[in-house]
Amino acid sequence: MGERNVIKAALLGAGTVGSGVYALAEMLKDEMFQKTGASLEIKKVLVRNTKKDRPGIPKEIMTDNWQEILEDEEIQLVIELMGGVEPARTYIVQALEAGKQVVTANKDVLAEHGQEILSLAENSGCDIQFEAAVAGAIPIIRPLKQSLAGSMLTEIMGIVNGTTNYILTKMSEEGMDYKEALAKATELGYAEADPTADVEGYDAGRKIAIMSSLAFNSKVTFSDVYMEGITKITSDDIRYAKEFGYVIKLLGVTKLVDGKIEVKVHPMLIPEQHPLATVRDSFNAVFVHGEACDDAMFMGRGAGKMPTASAVMGDIIIVMRNIVHDNCGWNGGVAYKNYPVKPIEETRSRYFLRLQVADKPGALANIAGVLGNNDVSIAQVVQKRARDGVAELVVITDSVLERHFNDALMIVKGMSVLREVSGIIRVYGD
Amino acid sequence: MGERNVIKAALLGAGTVGSGVYALAEMLKDEMFQKTGASLEIKKVLVRNTKKDRPGIPKEIMTDNWQEILEDEEIQLVIELMGGVEPARTYIVQALEAGKQVVTANKDVLAEHGQEILSLAENSGCDIQFEAAVAGAIPIIRPLKQSLAGSMLTEIMGIVNGTTNYILTKMSEEGMDYKEALAKATELGYAEADPTADVEGYDAGRKIAIMSSLAFNSKVTFSDVYMEGITKITSDDIRYAKEFGYVIKLLGVTKLVDGKIEVKVHPMLIPEQHPLATVRDSFNAVFVHGEACDDAMFMGRGAGKMPTASAVMGDIIIVMRNIVHDNCGWNGGVAYKNYPVKPIEETRSRYFLRLQVADKPGALANIAGVLGNNDVSIAQVVQKRARDGVAELVVITDSVLERHFNDALMIVKGMSVLREVSGIIRVYGD
Repeated sequence: MGERNVIKAALLGAGTVGSGVYALAEMLKDEMFQKTGASLEIKKVLVRNTKKDRPGIPKEIMTDNWQEILEDEEIQLVIELMGGVEPARTYIVQALEAGKQVVTANKDVLAEHGQEILSLAENSGCDIQFEAAVAGAIPIIRPLKQSLAGSMLTEIMGIVNGTTNYILTKMSEEGMDYKEALAKATELGYAEADPTADVEGYDAGRKIAIMSSLAFNSKVTFSDVYMEGITKITSDDIRYAKEFGYVIKLLGVTKLVDGKIEVKVHPMLIPEQHPLATVRDSFNAVFVHGEACDDAMFMGRGAGKMPTASAVMGDIIIVMRNIVHDNCGWNGGVAYKNYPVKPIEETRSRYFLRLQVADKPGALANIAGVLGNNDVSIAQVVQKRARDGVAELVVITDSVLERHFNDALMIVKGMSVLREVSGIIRVYGD
Repeated sequence: MGERNVIKAALLGAGTVGSGVYALAEMLKDEMFQKTGASLEIKKVLVRNTKKDRPGIPKEIMTDNWQEILEDEEIQLVIELMGGVEPARTYIVQALEAGKQVVTANKDVLAEHGQEILSLAENSGCDIQFEAAVAGAIPIIRPLKQSLAGSMLTEIMGIVNGTTNYILTKMSEEGMDYKEALAKATELGYAEADPTADVEGYDAGRKIAIMSSLAFNSKVTFSDVYMEGITKITSDDIRYAKEFGYVIKLLGVTKLVDGKIEVKVHPMLIPEQHPLATVRDSFNAVFVHGEACDDAMFMGRGAGKMPTASAVMGDIIIVMRNIVHDNCGWNGGVAYKNYPVKPIEETRSRYFLRLQVADKPGALANIAGVLGNNDVSIAQVVQKRARDGVAELVVITDSVLERHFNDALMIVKGMSVLREVSGIIRVYGD
């Protein structure tokens, strides 16, 4: 094995995923050579604190100096696992400009600057691989760009945040309330100290932006995504959903409807029989529909040290083969369409609406009348026995333009029979 | 767009999938150019009868003469959709030897001659793509070779035959017996006039052989696969399985255990909570487990005109890009390991065993004793009320070496209390 068969790489970040990748690269030395015809040498590891002990990673290869990596012409491959937009974006851009191949798991950078980075990689003739950025160990980025390229995709629905799926599973299966389930998720290390990005849907928003862009070959960024989190979901909502035969999941949804893209994250009631309904705990899943391929779903570990590292390793192996075969830079995924993104008001949804109303004759008829007069047609309704003069009314609507639904809701909120709007959640289906 | 940007192809076969691919290639003309920088021209379509009318395909491009295609130097890509081993295998080999790229959906050829064809493609510097050969529209071939390449895969379990999954779903959900469900499948066109290849597990056997080879990078062919079909499954088996919390599915299973490969197709009781249990009707799904990636599952349409055509189209787009970028021949998947395949007797399983026994005191104790003396330990047992002096005994065993189970069964069969062995089905789990 000659000198030319060693590919030298730098790892940016030695946290959970970074140390997993380092360990996996050691374990798979022989496999990688068999698959690519080359060996990988991780020559440098960029860390903030070079003094800190990182088990398994030799001290002498650690550096806190990015320039040292950027200027090292022996380093052909940069594996970026720092997370966050800056300085990761700058490092990725500089690496590509310097002709280095890039593997990254950074959804933040890709959701905001994905198309610029893909174009830069194309112009530089460099690989940019990012299978781990969405749904961890689940192969979804490459299938969207390759195997499904002839499928005429029209819709993606994804459970792409494990923390919130874990919380909703605990609420649904063990009757926990939101706070209790969040505490449990924090205790197990699924939720971070500040869980905002997960529970408000921002993390899922980044992932659905990336998938939307690749599925529809059109630029979609994080700022295009409408987002609603799970903080308002109560155990009552979950209980009523169950009565109607639904489970509640936080979904990233993107659709191509009449040449316009819808892209959003929100909780949704999905039928118990739907494949996504069976995705429990911290598992992720991505459901796709195409005119040619029909329905397909991909399920697996969306996070975690070794699952995420395994996806990064798949990317590394591909880049190594491309280096050996002198074939880097054909990444695909650069947008060649220019679909507009619909404002949320112009999208359609079915709705689950839970109301507390005065227990008076005609209250239901009044509310149903107001909804009907505003183009909100009722598909199912349940009224529960009154307590303390207040009755609980749960309505599932047919598909309605969000704008119309909001108008109707405004009027309902002004009605004298209304005591409280306790829950508003979108429902699967047209 | 100059002359060099038209890629000329030949389609071998114009049946259901072939006509779907032709139609999709027309529909996606613009998409394909955007994605690859080239246009596709299907210059020839090989059919047995050139007189037969095939809606959508012009008569003048049909030929019944393979040599005409093989010798046409303009044709760079051969899309083989005839099925069956010969003459498809010969055509694929000759096309590769002539330096033509090949896309095929032919599981028969790949399950028997996959490694020879992959090696030939590598030596010829040609592409061989076959995403549609296993599980139709579900991307699984390319993920096994690429995204999951760093996942340390140890096990695959697949529902990879839609016909049998449809039959078992009807038996399970509508209480049909096997014959009735088969008749329904035939009526709907899911089952062929001769359903042997489906119901005996041969079709699934071909697909699991292909996946096993790719997952473990070792040569596994159709003849290595142990196969049992679904013809002996009764509605009683399904009912008892349900009582124990299981559903019955026909699975292709392959495992890498202590450096040896297990590869088999048989019905299996799987827990209702397992993701594979929720895969209904004619849907396919492939469940994989790896030491690094943990569990993952891929679900979708395993057959049908447009779903299969969409997978073929994904392959065509990849080959076109490779032609444009002068980068054909890096297929991966050539076996570099040489794991032996275990004989079925040396594999381990849990078992569901349904017996009719004489309704005499001590019958259960007798049988339990014989099982125990032969290393078959009982995990669960149900004895049903006797009718006409015969009691039904249903046992689920712990994991046992197949050889030991067979020995025990032989002795049980010779016992005077035994009236009939009514069902023997393997059970999920270790």
